[in-house]
Amino acid sequence: MEAIEELAIQPCTSSLYLRPFRLCYRQNGTKKFWDFMRTHDSVSILIFNTSRQCFVVVKQFRPAVYMCELERHHPELFENQDKESLSRVEDPLPAAVGVTYELCAGIIDKPDLSLEEIACEEILEECGYRVPITNLRKITSYRSGVGVTGSRQTLFYAEVTDQMRTGEGGGQPEEGELIEVVEIPLEDSMKFAYDETFPKTMGVIFSFMWFQTNIAPKLPKK
Amino acid sequence: MEAIEELAIQPCTSSLYLRPFRLCYRQNGTKKFWDFMRTHDSVSILIFNTSRQCFVVVKQFRPAVYMCELERHHPELFENQDKESLSRVEDPLPAAVGVTYELCAGIIDKPDLSLEEIACEEILEECGYRVPITNLRKITSYRSGVGVTGSRQTLFYAEVTDQMRTGEGGGQPEEGELIEVVEIPLEDSMKFAYDETFPKTMGVIFSFMWFQTNIAPKLPKK
Repeated sequence: MEAIEELAIQPCTSSLYLRPFRLCYRQNGTKKFWDFMRTHDSVSILIFNTSRQCFVVVKQFRPAVYMCELERHHPELFENQDKESLSRVEDPLPAAVGVTYELCAGIIDKPDLSLEEIACEEILEECGYRVPITNLRKITSYRSGVGVTGSRQTLFYAEVTDQMRTGEGGGQPEEGELIEVVEIPLEDSMKFAYDETFPKTMGVIFSFMWFQTNIAPKLPKK
Repeated sequence: MEAIEELAIQPCTSSLYLRPFRLCYRQNGTKKFWDFMRTHDSVSILIFNTSRQCFVVVKQFRPAVYMCELERHHPELFENQDKESLSRVEDPLPAAVGVTYELCAGIIDKPDLSLEEIACEEILEECGYRVPITNLRKITSYRSGVGVTGSRQTLFYAEVTDQMRTGEGGGQPEEGELIEVVEIPLEDSMKFAYDETFPKTMGVIFSFMWFQTNIAPKLPKK
């Protein structure tokens, strides 16, 4: 399990990662404004290993999820944050409350690559499978957030085999990624999807259900 | 359709709505930090009108989605934003590119109310149906964002009838909400879900599919 230590939070006055803007406009005659953030669009991939009939997902410590849980227990941490001070978290929660199960995913920040090429790169980096682009099937796209970011995510389905596994995955440690690759057996997948004791994204639940409807009926019987 | 005029953007240095923080920590021995935002958890409701066999969803102009599309066409708008200046958008896109279809939803900002009570309030405010709490069925919960907000969303299913419609819905105009209530006939719903020309959230697609699997088989035959 993750060891998360020496936690401290501070208000963030400037960030390379969060780019807040305000849009001022007039809607049907009424003056309004809306604060939002620019982020990158993204791809996300449901990976199914046909050799062992399991889904391949990733698991990682998510600071934002952890802090959401921490606020439930220590709301005062966020209340006295008017000034630019660093507050030590004296009584942290176990790191496990911030660990989520997610589909393999990545942001679209390489204008020269197609969405499919970026998806294949992420599958290799995060999960260790070298997948030909022709193995990708687009499921659909949607808005991954409408209030704050407005960004679009495109969801793909990729079938892999054990023979395609050329590495461990795990993300790019030099960029701070610490990703664990997890296999969810097909027969346990719907139970897993609706078990709220495993924190996860809606993408995991949706795509597992999509598989049941669209792929499972065509699988060769064992 | 929405008239959106007089658009201008500026960097947002302070916001009541976006609360950016930085978490500093040590993960497995390595010092790291992560910038995130605190937002509220939320509820979201799949509403099915049994009188007319249709889903009830909402449609609204989303500035963040609009700006995401605008950046695709005018990336320079976001590039020269080092200083605190207001930039007029000289060549705006049609408002329609920022209009999304979503499930009825609301943030959890009333500590005295249960999730179910908040869900019923949102159904009334946004869609105009007065629904008893016992008509709500919890589908599941998940993380609605893991990178930036980490917040949790709980998804409910609610059956309504025409008799329960006591108002127009449309949100709270005094709070700036301009929400259009839209009915999607059950027989068109899966086609709608996968038609990417209607921008929508994953919640719409997921919950329509959930309905097909969990509710549709038990509907009385017409």
